[in-house]
Amino acid sequence: MTLTLNQQSRSFGGTTQFYQHSSQCCNAPMRFSVYIPPQAAQQPVPILYWLSGLTCTEENFITKAGAQRLAAQYGLLLVAPDTSPRNLGLPGEQDRWDFGSGASFYVDATEFPWAKHYQMYRYVTEELPLLIEENFPVDPTRQSIFGHSMGGHGALICALRHPSRYQSVSAFAPITAPMSCPWGETAFRGYLGENRQTWSAYDASELVKTSAWRRPILVDQGDADSFLAQGQLLPERFETACQQAGIDLRLRMQPGYDHSYYFIASFIDDHLRHHGEALGCV
Amino acid sequence: MTLTLNQQSRSFGGTTQFYQHSSQCCNAPMRFSVYIPPQAAQQPVPILYWLSGLTCTEENFITKAGAQRLAAQYGLLLVAPDTSPRNLGLPGEQDRWDFGSGASFYVDATEFPWAKHYQMYRYVTEELPLLIEENFPVDPTRQSIFGHSMGGHGALICALRHPSRYQSVSAFAPITAPMSCPWGETAFRGYLGENRQTWSAYDASELVKTSAWRRPILVDQGDADSFLAQGQLLPERFETACQQAGIDLRLRMQPGYDHSYYFIASFIDDHLRHHGEALGCV
Repeated sequence: MTLTLNQQSRSFGGTTQFYQHSSQCCNAPMRFSVYIPPQAAQQPVPILYWLSGLTCTEENFITKAGAQRLAAQYGLLLVAPDTSPRNLGLPGEQDRWDFGSGASFYVDATEFPWAKHYQMYRYVTEELPLLIEENFPVDPTRQSIFGHSMGGHGALICALRHPSRYQSVSAFAPITAPMSCPWGETAFRGYLGENRQTWSAYDASELVKTSAWRRPILVDQGDADSFLAQGQLLPERFETACQQAGIDLRLRMQPGYDHSYYFIASFIDDHLRHHGEALGCV
Repeated sequence: MTLTLNQQSRSFGGTTQFYQHSSQCCNAPMRFSVYIPPQAAQQPVPILYWLSGLTCTEENFITKAGAQRLAAQYGLLLVAPDTSPRNLGLPGEQDRWDFGSGASFYVDATEFPWAKHYQMYRYVTEELPLLIEENFPVDPTRQSIFGHSMGGHGALICALRHPSRYQSVSAFAPITAPMSCPWGETAFRGYLGENRQTWSAYDASELVKTSAWRRPILVDQGDADSFLAQGQLLPERFETACQQAGIDLRLRMQPGYDHSYYFIASFIDDHLRHHGEALGCV
Protein backbone atom coordinates (compact mmCIF):
# COMPACT_ATOMS: atom_id res chain seq x y z
CA MET A 1 0.00 0.00 0.00
CA THR A 2 1.47 3.32 -1.04
CA LEU A 3 1.15 6.40 1.12
CA THR A 4 1.35 9.89 -0.32
CA LEU A 5 2.61 12.53 2.07
CA ASN A 6 0.70 15.73 1.31
CA GLN A 7 2.01 18.01 4.03
CA GLN A 8 4.19 17.95 7.09
CA SER A 9 5.23 20.36 9.82
CA ARG A 10 7.62 20.06 12.71
CA SER A 11 5.54 20.13 15.87
CA PHE A 12 6.61 19.89 19.53
CA GLY A 13 9.87 18.21 18.59
CA GLY A 14 8.06 15.66 16.42
CA THR A 15 6.18 15.93 13.15
CA THR A 16 2.54 16.46 12.17
CA GLN A 17 1.85 14.86 8.78
CA PHE A 18 -1.04 14.50 6.34
CA TYR A 19 -1.34 11.43 4.13
CA GLN A 20 -3.51 10.14 1.34
CA HIS A 21 -3.73 6.58 0.09
CA SER A 22 -5.90 4.29 -1.97
CA SER A 23 -8.07 2.34 0.47
CA GLN A 24 -8.77 -1.24 -0.54
CA CYS A 25 -11.74 -1.79 1.71
CA CYS A 26 -13.35 1.56 0.86
CA ASN A 27 -12.47 1.37 -2.86
CA ALA A 28 -11.63 5.04 -2.63
CA PRO A 29 -8.89 7.48 -1.71
CA MET A 30 -8.71 8.05 2.03
CA ARG A 31 -6.87 10.64 4.07
CA PHE A 32 -5.50 10.71 7.59
CA SER A 33 -3.23 12.82 9.74
CA VAL A 34 -0.49 11.56 12.03
CA TYR A 35 1.54 13.05 14.81
CA ILE A 36 4.90 11.34 15.20
CA PRO A 37 6.41 12.09 18.61
CA PRO A 38 10.15 12.70 19.07
CA GLN A 39 10.57 9.32 20.83
CA ALA A 40 9.77 7.51 17.57
CA ALA A 41 13.27 8.34 16.33
CA GLN A 42 14.67 6.01 19.02
CA GLN A 43 12.13 3.25 19.53
CA PRO A 44 8.72 1.91 18.50
CA VAL A 45 5.99 3.98 20.15
CA PRO A 46 2.39 3.22 21.14
CA ILE A 47 -0.48 4.35 18.90
CA LEU A 48 -3.48 6.43 19.89
CA TYR A 49 -6.27 6.57 17.31
CA TRP A 50 -8.68 9.52 17.19
CA LEU A 51 -12.03 9.28 15.41
CA SER A 52 -13.64 12.61 14.53
CA GLY A 53 -17.24 13.73 14.52
CA LEU A 54 -19.79 14.62 11.86
CA THR A 55 -18.49 16.93 9.07
CA CYS A 56 -14.89 16.73 10.30
CA THR A 57 -11.92 15.76 8.15
CA GLU A 58 -8.50 14.47 9.14
CA GLU A 59 -7.57 18.08 9.93
CA ASN A 60 -9.86 19.24 12.75
CA PHE A 61 -8.41 17.24 15.59
CA ILE A 62 -4.78 17.65 14.69
CA THR A 63 -5.08 21.45 14.30
CA LYS A 64 -7.52 22.32 17.08
CA ALA A 65 -7.35 19.84 19.97
CA GLY A 66 -3.90 20.75 21.27
CA ALA A 67 -3.04 17.05 21.61
CA GLN A 68 0.54 17.19 20.32
CA ARG A 69 1.93 18.77 23.48
CA LEU A 70 1.34 15.77 25.76
CA ALA A 71 1.66 13.25 22.91
CA ALA A 72 5.22 14.58 22.50
CA GLN A 73 5.82 14.31 26.22
CA TYR A 74 4.43 10.78 26.54
CA GLY A 75 5.71 9.51 23.20
CA LEU A 76 2.33 8.69 21.65
CA LEU A 77 1.82 8.43 17.91
CA LEU A 78 -1.55 10.01 17.08
CA VAL A 79 -3.57 8.90 14.05
CA ALA A 80 -6.72 10.76 12.94
CA PRO A 81 -8.49 9.44 9.83
CA ASP A 82 -11.06 11.33 7.77
CA THR A 83 -14.67 10.56 8.70
CA SER A 84 -15.66 8.93 5.39
CA PRO A 85 -14.62 8.48 1.77
CA ARG A 86 -15.41 11.65 -0.22
CA ASN A 87 -16.35 12.92 -3.68
CA LEU A 88 -17.50 9.57 -5.05
CA GLY A 89 -20.54 10.92 -6.86
CA LEU A 90 -22.91 8.60 -4.96
CA PRO A 91 -26.58 9.63 -4.98
CA GLY A 92 -27.32 11.50 -1.76
CA GLU A 93 -23.64 11.68 -0.79
CA GLN A 94 -23.69 15.46 -0.23
CA ASP A 95 -27.35 16.01 0.64
CA ARG A 96 -27.10 16.00 4.43
CA TRP A 97 -24.37 17.01 6.85
CA ASP A 98 -25.30 14.12 9.16
CA PHE A 99 -25.38 11.33 6.56
CA GLY A 100 -23.10 10.39 3.65
CA SER A 101 -19.93 12.38 3.12
CA GLY A 102 -18.28 13.20 6.47
CA ALA A 103 -20.79 11.04 8.32
CA SER A 104 -19.85 7.38 7.94
CA PHE A 105 -20.73 6.49 11.53
CA TYR A 106 -17.84 4.01 11.34
CA VAL A 107 -20.04 1.11 10.18
CA ASP A 108 -19.58 -1.36 7.33
CA ALA A 109 -22.48 -0.40 5.09
CA THR A 110 -24.60 -3.16 3.58
CA GLU A 111 -27.01 -1.01 1.58
CA PHE A 112 -26.80 0.46 -1.92
CA PRO A 113 -25.06 2.77 -2.84
CA TRP A 114 -22.94 2.86 0.32
CA ALA A 115 -21.81 -0.75 0.65
CA LYS A 116 -19.14 -0.51 -2.03
CA HIS A 117 -17.31 2.37 -0.31
CA TYR A 118 -18.52 3.01 3.23
CA GLN A 119 -16.61 0.19 4.94
CA MET A 120 -15.33 2.45 7.66
CA TYR A 121 -15.45 -0.04 10.52
CA ARG A 122 -13.09 -2.36 8.67
CA TYR A 123 -11.08 0.66 7.60
CA VAL A 124 -10.42 1.96 11.11
CA THR A 125 -10.01 -1.46 12.76
CA GLU A 126 -8.14 -3.37 10.03
CA GLU A 127 -6.79 -1.53 7.01
CA LEU A 128 -5.63 1.64 8.74
CA PRO A 129 -3.89 -0.16 11.63
CA LEU A 130 -2.06 -2.37 9.14
CA LEU A 131 -0.98 0.68 7.20
CA ILE A 132 0.26 2.39 10.36
CA GLU A 133 2.17 -0.69 11.48
CA GLU A 134 3.83 -1.06 8.09
CA ASN A 135 4.81 2.57 7.65
CA PHE A 136 5.54 4.05 11.06
CA PRO A 137 7.84 3.10 13.96
CA VAL A 138 5.07 1.79 16.21
CA ASP A 139 4.55 -0.93 18.76
CA PRO A 140 1.29 -2.59 17.63
CA THR A 141 0.90 -4.37 20.95
CA ARG A 142 0.18 -0.98 22.50
CA GLN A 143 -2.75 0.88 20.99
CA SER A 144 -5.71 2.85 22.28
CA ILE A 145 -8.58 4.80 20.79
CA PHE A 146 -10.65 7.89 21.48
CA GLY A 147 -12.96 10.24 19.62
CA HIS A 148 -15.60 12.95 19.58
CA SER A 149 -19.35 12.78 19.03
CA MET A 150 -19.85 10.38 16.08
CA GLY A 151 -16.16 9.52 16.55
CA GLY A 152 -16.76 8.94 20.26
CA HIS A 153 -19.36 6.40 19.20
CA GLY A 154 -16.77 4.96 16.81
CA ALA A 155 -14.11 4.69 19.51
CA LEU A 156 -16.50 3.04 21.96
CA ILE A 157 -17.69 0.40 19.51
CA CYS A 158 -14.12 -0.39 18.39
CA ALA A 159 -13.01 -0.93 21.99
CA LEU A 160 -16.11 -2.86 23.05
CA ARG A 161 -15.85 -5.16 20.03
CA HIS A 162 -12.06 -5.63 20.38
CA PRO A 163 -11.45 -5.62 24.13
CA SER A 164 -8.02 -7.19 23.83
CA ARG A 165 -6.71 -5.00 21.04
CA TYR A 166 -7.10 -1.57 22.66
CA GLN A 167 -5.50 -0.84 26.01
CA SER A 168 -7.85 2.05 26.72
CA VAL A 169 -10.76 4.04 25.34
CA SER A 170 -12.22 7.48 26.00
CA ALA A 171 -14.60 9.90 24.35
CA PHE A 172 -15.78 13.49 24.23
CA ALA A 173 -19.55 13.95 23.96
CA PRO A 174 -20.00 10.57 22.27
CA ILE A 175 -23.15 9.32 20.59
CA THR A 176 -23.60 6.44 23.00
CA ALA A 177 -26.92 4.92 21.91
CA PRO A 178 -27.16 5.50 18.15
CA MET A 179 -30.12 3.12 17.71
CA SER A 180 -32.12 5.47 19.91
CA CYS A 181 -31.19 8.93 18.57
CA PRO A 182 -32.21 10.73 15.37
CA TRP A 183 -28.67 10.91 13.91
CA GLY A 184 -28.03 7.24 14.54
CA GLU A 185 -31.40 6.05 13.29
CA THR A 186 -30.97 7.93 10.01
CA ALA A 187 -27.45 6.65 9.55
CA PHE A 188 -28.10 3.03 10.50
CA ARG A 189 -31.23 2.83 8.35
CA GLY A 190 -29.33 4.28 5.40
CA TYR A 191 -26.15 2.25 5.76
CA LEU A 192 -27.48 -0.97 7.33
CA GLY A 193 -31.10 -1.27 6.24
CA GLU A 194 -34.23 -1.74 8.31
CA ASN A 195 -33.24 -4.73 10.47
CA ARG A 196 -32.52 -3.26 13.89
CA GLN A 197 -30.88 -6.53 14.93
CA THR A 198 -27.87 -5.71 12.76
CA TRP A 199 -27.74 -2.17 14.19
CA SER A 200 -26.94 -3.39 17.67
CA ALA A 201 -23.45 -4.51 16.62
CA TYR A 202 -22.66 -0.80 16.29
CA ASP A 203 -24.41 0.54 19.39
CA ALA A 204 -22.23 1.05 22.47
CA SER A 205 -25.15 0.83 24.89
CA GLU A 206 -26.05 -2.54 23.37
CA LEU A 207 -22.48 -3.79 23.08
CA VAL A 208 -21.65 -3.30 26.77
CA LYS A 209 -24.20 -6.02 27.57
CA THR A 210 -21.99 -8.69 26.03
CA SER A 211 -18.53 -7.10 25.66
CA ALA A 212 -15.58 -8.51 27.60
CA TRP A 213 -14.24 -4.94 28.06
CA ARG A 214 -13.43 -4.39 31.75
CA ARG A 215 -11.12 -1.37 31.90
CA PRO A 216 -12.34 2.10 32.90
CA ILE A 217 -13.96 4.23 30.19
CA LEU A 218 -13.43 7.99 30.42
CA VAL A 219 -16.17 10.20 28.95
CA ASP A 220 -16.39 14.00 29.13
CA GLN A 221 -19.72 15.62 28.29
CA GLY A 222 -20.50 19.34 28.32
CA ASP A 223 -23.82 20.09 29.95
CA ALA A 224 -24.41 23.08 27.62
CA ASP A 225 -23.98 20.88 24.54
CA SER A 226 -26.98 21.54 22.29
CA PHE A 227 -26.82 17.98 20.92
CA LEU A 228 -27.15 16.65 24.45
CA ALA A 229 -30.37 18.63 24.83
CA GLN A 230 -31.56 17.28 21.46
CA GLY A 231 -31.21 13.71 22.69
CA GLN A 232 -28.49 12.76 20.20
CA LEU A 233 -25.88 11.69 22.76
CA LEU A 234 -27.83 9.99 25.57
CA PRO A 235 -24.96 9.51 28.07
CA GLU A 236 -27.46 8.59 30.81
CA ARG A 237 -28.54 5.57 28.79
CA PHE A 238 -24.93 4.47 28.37
CA GLU A 239 -24.30 5.08 32.06
CA THR A 240 -27.17 2.78 33.01
CA ALA A 241 -26.00 0.12 30.56
CA CYS A 242 -22.44 0.27 31.93
CA GLN A 243 -23.69 0.03 35.51
CA GLN A 244 -25.73 -3.05 34.66
CA ALA A 245 -22.75 -4.59 32.88
CA GLY A 246 -20.34 -3.80 35.71
CA ILE A 247 -18.21 -1.53 33.52
CA ASP A 248 -16.41 1.37 35.21
CA LEU A 249 -17.67 4.38 33.24
CA ARG A 250 -16.11 7.64 34.39
CA LEU A 251 -18.68 10.06 33.00
CA ARG A 252 -17.78 13.65 33.82
CA MET A 253 -20.47 16.24 33.17
CA GLN A 254 -18.60 19.51 32.48
CA PRO A 255 -20.66 22.54 33.45
CA GLY A 256 -21.10 25.18 30.75
CA TYR A 257 -19.18 23.35 28.02
CA ASP A 258 -20.56 22.89 24.52
CA HIS A 259 -19.82 20.40 21.70
CA SER A 260 -16.89 22.29 20.13
CA TYR A 261 -13.15 21.79 19.94
CA TYR A 262 -12.85 24.48 22.66
CA PHE A 263 -14.42 21.86 24.94
CA ILE A 264 -12.15 19.12 23.63
CA ALA A 265 -8.99 21.21 24.03
CA SER A 266 -9.99 22.03 27.61
CA PHE A 267 -9.88 18.38 28.67
CA ILE A 268 -7.58 16.76 26.11
CA ASP A 269 -4.73 16.51 28.64
CA ASP A 270 -6.83 14.32 30.94
CA HIS A 271 -7.61 11.99 28.04
CA LEU A 272 -4.00 11.77 26.92
CA ARG A 273 -3.02 10.96 30.51
CA HIS A 274 -5.75 8.28 30.65
CA HIS A 275 -4.32 6.63 27.54
CA GLY A 276 -0.69 7.30 28.40
CA GLU A 277 -1.13 5.48 31.72
CA ALA A 278 -2.83 2.50 30.09
CA LEU A 279 -0.09 2.36 27.46
CA GLY A 280 2.65 2.52 30.06
CA CYS A 281 4.19 5.82 29.03
CA VAL A 282 3.19 8.27 31.75
CA MET B 1 -19.57 51.53 21.05
CA THR B 2 -21.75 48.47 20.76
CA LEU B 3 -20.28 45.00 20.64
CA THR B 4 -22.14 42.11 19.06
CA LEU B 5 -21.29 38.71 20.49
CA ASN B 6 -21.40 36.23 17.59
CA GLN B 7 -20.24 33.06 19.32
CA GLN B 8 -18.92 31.86 22.62
CA SER B 9 -17.65 28.63 24.09
CA ARG B 10 -16.53 27.65 27.54
CA SER B 11 -12.81 27.00 27.36
CA PHE B 12 -10.34 25.97 30.09
CA GLY B 13 -12.64 27.28 32.81
CA GLY B 14 -13.01 30.63 31.03
CA THR B 15 -14.71 31.65 27.80
CA THR B 16 -13.61 32.04 24.19
CA GLN B 17 -15.74 34.67 22.46
CA PHE B 18 -16.11 36.19 18.99
CA TYR B 19 -17.26 39.78 18.58
CA GLN B 20 -18.16 42.17 15.81
CA HIS B 21 -18.49 45.94 16.08
CA SER B 22 -18.62 49.06 13.99
CA SER B 23 -15.12 50.53 13.96
CA GLN B 24 -14.98 54.30 13.96
CA CYS B 25 -11.41 54.64 12.78
CA CYS B 26 -11.79 52.00 10.05
CA ASN B 27 -15.30 53.15 9.02
CA ALA B 28 -16.16 49.49 8.73
CA PRO B 29 -17.31 46.48 10.71
CA MET B 30 -14.41 44.80 12.50
CA ARG B 31 -14.18 41.45 14.24
CA PHE B 32 -12.04 40.13 17.05
CA SER B 33 -11.84 37.13 19.34
CA VAL B 34 -11.27 37.19 23.08
CA TYR B 35 -10.33 34.62 25.67
CA ILE B 36 -11.58 35.57 29.12
CA PRO B 37 -9.72 33.60 31.79
CA PRO B 38 -11.48 32.29 34.91
CA GLN B 39 -9.72 34.86 37.12
CA ALA B 40 -11.67 37.68 35.40
CA ALA B 41 -14.74 36.68 37.42
CA GLN B 42 -12.93 37.83 40.57
CA GLN B 43 -10.66 40.71 39.58
CA PRO B 44 -9.41 42.84 36.67
CA VAL B 45 -6.91 40.86 34.61
CA PRO B 46 -4.00 41.87 32.35
CA ILE B 47 -4.46 41.96 28.59
CA LEU B 48 -2.34 40.18 25.98
CA TYR B 49 -2.96 41.26 22.38
CA TRP B 50 -2.22 38.93 19.49
CA LEU B 51 -1.81 40.23 15.94
CA SER B 52 -2.20 37.62 13.20
CA GLY B 53 -0.41 37.17 9.90
CA LEU B 54 -1.37 37.53 6.25
CA THR B 55 -4.73 35.98 5.27
CA CYS B 56 -5.66 35.20 8.88
CA THR B 57 -8.88 36.25 10.55
CA GLU B 58 -9.73 36.62 14.23
CA GLU B 59 -10.19 32.84 14.30
CA ASN B 60 -6.80 31.29 13.45
CA PHE B 61 -4.93 32.08 16.63
CA ILE B 62 -7.74 31.37 19.06
CA THR B 63 -8.51 27.96 17.49
CA LYS B 64 -5.03 26.70 16.59
CA ALA B 65 -2.35 28.16 18.87
CA GLY B 66 -3.31 26.36 22.06
CA ALA B 67 -2.91 29.60 24.03
CA GLN B 68 -5.93 29.26 26.30
CA ARG B 69 -4.37 26.61 28.53
CA LEU B 70 -1.69 28.85 30.03
CA ALA B 71 -3.78 32.02 29.65
CA ALA B 72 -6.27 30.31 31.97
CA GLN B 73 -3.52 29.35 34.38
CA TYR B 74 -1.92 32.81 34.43
CA GLY B 75 -5.15 34.79 34.24
CA LEU B 76 -4.44 36.58 30.94
CA LEU B 77 -7.20 38.01 28.77
CA LEU B 78 -6.30 37.33 25.14
CA VAL B 79 -7.49 39.61 22.33
CA ALA B 80 -6.98 38.69 18.66
CA PRO B 81 -8.35 41.15 16.07
CA ASP B 82 -8.96 40.41 12.41
CA THR B 83 -6.08 41.45 10.12
CA SER B 84 -8.00 44.13 8.18
CA PRO B 85 -11.48 45.45 7.40
CA ARG B 86 -13.20 43.20 4.85
CA ASN B 87 -15.73 43.17 2.02
CA LEU B 88 -15.70 46.92 1.40
CA GLY B 89 -15.73 46.67 -2.39
CA LEU B 90 -12.51 48.68 -2.72
CA PRO B 91 -10.68 48.36 -6.07
CA GLY B 92 -7.92 45.76 -5.67
CA GLU B 93 -9.14 44.69 -2.22
CA GLN B 94 -9.30 40.99 -3.11
CA ASP B 95 -6.67 40.79 -5.86
CA ARG B 96 -3.68 39.65 -3.80
CA TRP B 97 -3.34 37.52 -0.67
CA ASP B 98 -0.46 39.73 0.56
CA PHE B 99 -2.13 43.12 0.06
CA GLY B 100 -5.61 44.49 0.77
CA SER B 101 -8.10 42.24 2.54
CA GLY B 102 -6.37 40.20 5.27
CA ALA B 103 -3.12 42.11 4.76
CA SER B 104 -3.37 45.52 6.43
CA PHE B 105 0.21 45.45 7.72
CA TYR B 106 -1.12 47.36 10.74
CA VAL B 107 -0.41 50.79 9.24
CA ASP B 108 -2.59 53.88 8.96
CA ALA B 109 -2.99 54.12 5.20
CA THR B 110 -2.65 57.53 3.56
CA GLU B 111 -3.34 56.48 -0.05
CA PHE B 112 -6.56 56.10 -2.01
CA PRO B 113 -8.63 53.90 -1.73
CA TRP B 114 -7.21 52.53 1.51
CA ALA B 115 -6.95 55.64 3.69
CA LYS B 116 -10.66 55.78 4.50
CA HIS B 117 -10.73 52.26 5.99
CA TYR B 118 -7.26 50.81 6.54
CA GLN B 119 -6.42 52.65 9.77
CA MET B 120 -5.27 49.50 11.48
CA TYR B 121 -2.45 51.02 13.51
CA ARG B 122 -4.87 53.35 15.25
CA TYR B 123 -7.35 50.50 15.47
CA VAL B 124 -5.03 48.12 17.34
CA THR B 125 -3.35 50.78 19.51
CA GLU B 126 -6.30 53.08 20.26
CA GLU B 127 -9.81 52.02 19.34
CA LEU B 128 -9.56 48.33 20.20
CA PRO B 129 -7.83 48.88 23.59
CA LEU B 130 -10.52 51.41 24.52
CA LEU B 131 -13.20 48.93 23.55
CA ILE B 132 -11.56 46.18 25.59
CA GLU B 133 -11.18 48.43 28.64
CA GLU B 134 -14.81 49.51 28.44
CA ASN B 135 -16.30 46.07 27.95
CA PHE B 136 -14.14 43.54 29.79
CA PRO B 137 -12.87 43.19 33.37
CA VAL B 138 -9.30 44.21 32.58
CA ASP B 139 -6.47 46.13 34.22
CA PRO B 140 -5.35 48.54 31.47
CA THR B 141 -2.11 49.30 33.29
CA ARG B 142 -0.99 45.77 32.46
CA GLN B 143 -0.94 44.95 28.77
CA SER B 144 1.41 43.21 26.38
CA ILE B 145 1.43 42.29 22.72
CA PHE B 146 2.64 39.52 20.44
CA GLY B 147 1.99 38.23 16.96
CA HIS B 148 2.96 36.12 13.96
CA SER B 149 4.59 37.06 10.66
CA MET B 150 2.83 40.28 9.52
CA GLY B 151 1.35 40.35 13.03
CA GLY B 152 4.81 39.89 14.53
CA HIS B 153 5.77 43.02 12.62
CA GLY B 154 2.63 44.67 14.01
CA ALA B 155 3.43 43.67 17.59
CA LEU B 156 7.03 44.90 17.33
CA ILE B 157 6.09 48.31 15.94
CA CYS B 158 3.35 48.79 18.55
CA ALA B 159 5.79 48.04 21.37
CA LEU B 160 8.67 50.06 19.92
CA ARG B 161 6.41 53.09 19.34
CA HIS B 162 4.70 52.77 22.75
CA PRO B 163 7.44 51.57 25.08
CA SER B 164 5.59 52.57 28.21
CA ARG B 165 2.23 51.11 27.28
CA TYR B 166 3.22 47.48 26.72
CA GLN B 167 4.96 45.53 29.47
CA SER B 168 6.38 42.98 27.03
CA VAL B 169 6.50 42.00 23.38
CA SER B 170 7.27 38.81 21.49
CA ALA B 171 6.83 37.41 18.00
CA PHE B 172 6.80 34.25 15.91
CA ALA B 173 8.56 34.53 12.54
CA PRO B 174 7.96 38.28 12.36
CA ILE B 175 8.51 40.49 9.32
CA THR B 176 11.21 42.56 10.98
CA ALA B 177 12.36 44.86 8.18
CA PRO B 178 9.32 45.47 5.98
CA MET B 179 10.98 48.32 4.03
CA SER B 180 13.49 45.78 2.76
CA CYS B 181 11.31 42.78 1.85
CA PRO B 182 8.95 42.21 -1.08
CA TRP B 183 5.80 41.88 1.06
CA GLY B 184 6.55 45.06 2.98
CA GLU B 185 7.56 47.09 -0.05
CA THR B 186 4.34 46.23 -1.86
CA ALA B 187 2.24 46.99 1.20
CA PHE B 188 3.95 50.23 2.21
CA ARG B 189 3.93 51.57 -1.35
CA GLY B 190 0.23 50.76 -1.66
CA TYR B 191 -0.89 52.04 1.73
CA LEU B 192 1.65 54.83 2.37
CA GLY B 193 2.78 56.04 -1.05
CA GLU B 194 6.27 56.38 -2.48
CA ASN B 195 7.99 58.38 0.25
CA ARG B 196 10.17 55.87 2.10
CA GLN B 197 10.67 58.35 4.91
CA THR B 198 7.10 57.74 6.09
CA TRP B 199 7.63 53.97 5.83
CA SER B 200 10.26 53.93 8.55
CA ALA B 201 7.68 54.75 11.24
CA TYR B 202 6.36 51.22 10.64
CA ASP B 203 9.64 49.31 10.31
CA ALA B 204 10.89 47.56 13.45
CA SER B 205 14.51 47.53 12.30
CA GLU B 206 14.32 51.32 11.82
CA LEU B 207 12.32 51.97 14.98
CA VAL B 208 14.81 50.27 17.31
CA LYS B 209 17.30 53.03 16.43
CA THR B 210 15.25 55.62 18.28
CA SER B 211 12.82 53.69 20.47
CA ALA B 212 13.03 53.95 24.24
CA TRP B 213 12.10 50.23 24.50
CA ARG B 214 14.60 48.49 26.81
CA ARG B 215 12.98 45.22 27.89
CA PRO B 216 13.90 41.84 26.34
CA ILE B 217 12.20 40.92 23.07
CA LEU B 218 11.49 37.22 22.48
CA VAL B 219 11.42 36.03 18.88
CA ASP B 220 11.07 32.44 17.64
CA GLN B 221 11.93 31.71 14.03
CA GLY B 222 11.79 28.32 12.31
CA ASP B 223 14.82 27.68 10.13
CA ALA B 224 12.72 25.65 7.63
CA ASP B 225 10.32 28.59 7.14
CA SER B 226 10.01 29.12 3.38
CA PHE B 227 9.38 32.84 3.90
CA LEU B 228 12.67 33.10 5.75
CA ALA B 229 14.42 31.65 2.69
CA GLN B 230 12.52 34.12 0.48
CA GLY B 231 13.91 37.05 2.43
CA GLN B 232 10.55 38.23 3.72
CA LEU B 233 11.39 38.05 7.44
CA LEU B 234 15.05 39.14 7.72
CA PRO B 235 15.62 38.39 11.41
CA GLU B 236 19.38 38.84 10.97
CA ARG B 237 18.80 42.47 10.00
CA PHE B 238 16.66 43.03 13.09
CA GLU B 239 19.25 41.27 15.22
CA THR B 240 21.98 43.62 14.03
CA ALA B 241 19.76 46.65 14.56
CA CYS B 242 18.90 45.52 18.10
CA GLN B 243 22.56 44.89 18.91
CA GLN B 244 23.48 48.37 17.74
CA ALA B 245 20.65 49.87 19.77
CA GLY B 246 21.52 47.88 22.88
CA ILE B 247 18.19 46.05 22.90
CA ASP B 248 18.12 42.53 24.34
CA LEU B 249 16.70 40.48 21.45
CA ARG B 250 16.27 36.82 22.32
CA LEU B 251 16.14 35.38 18.82
CA ARG B 252 15.72 31.62 18.89
CA MET B 253 16.24 29.79 15.60
CA GLN B 254 14.14 26.62 15.82
CA PRO B 255 15.56 23.82 13.71
CA GLY B 256 13.15 22.21 11.24
CA TYR B 257 10.16 24.41 12.05
CA ASP B 258 8.11 26.11 9.34
CA HIS B 259 5.81 29.16 9.31
CA SER B 260 2.62 27.38 10.39
CA TYR B 261 0.50 27.28 13.52
CA TYR B 262 2.12 23.90 14.29
CA PHE B 263 5.27 25.94 14.88
CA ILE B 264 3.41 28.55 16.93
CA ALA B 265 1.66 25.94 19.09
CA SER B 266 5.01 24.26 19.78
CA PHE B 267 6.41 27.38 21.47
CA ILE B 268 3.31 29.28 22.59
CA ASP B 269 3.88 28.31 26.22
CA ASP B 270 7.28 30.03 26.27
CA HIS B 271 5.70 33.21 24.92
CA LEU B 272 2.84 33.16 27.40
CA ARG B 273 5.37 32.70 30.19
CA HIS B 274 7.42 35.62 28.82
CA HIS B 275 4.36 37.85 28.96
CA GLY B 276 2.97 36.39 32.16
CA GLU B 277 6.22 37.17 33.96
CA ALA B 278 6.32 40.74 32.66
CA LEU B 279 2.67 41.19 33.66
CA GLY B 280 3.29 39.83 37.13
CA CYS B 281 1.06 36.78 36.93
CA VAL B 282 3.43 33.82 36.70
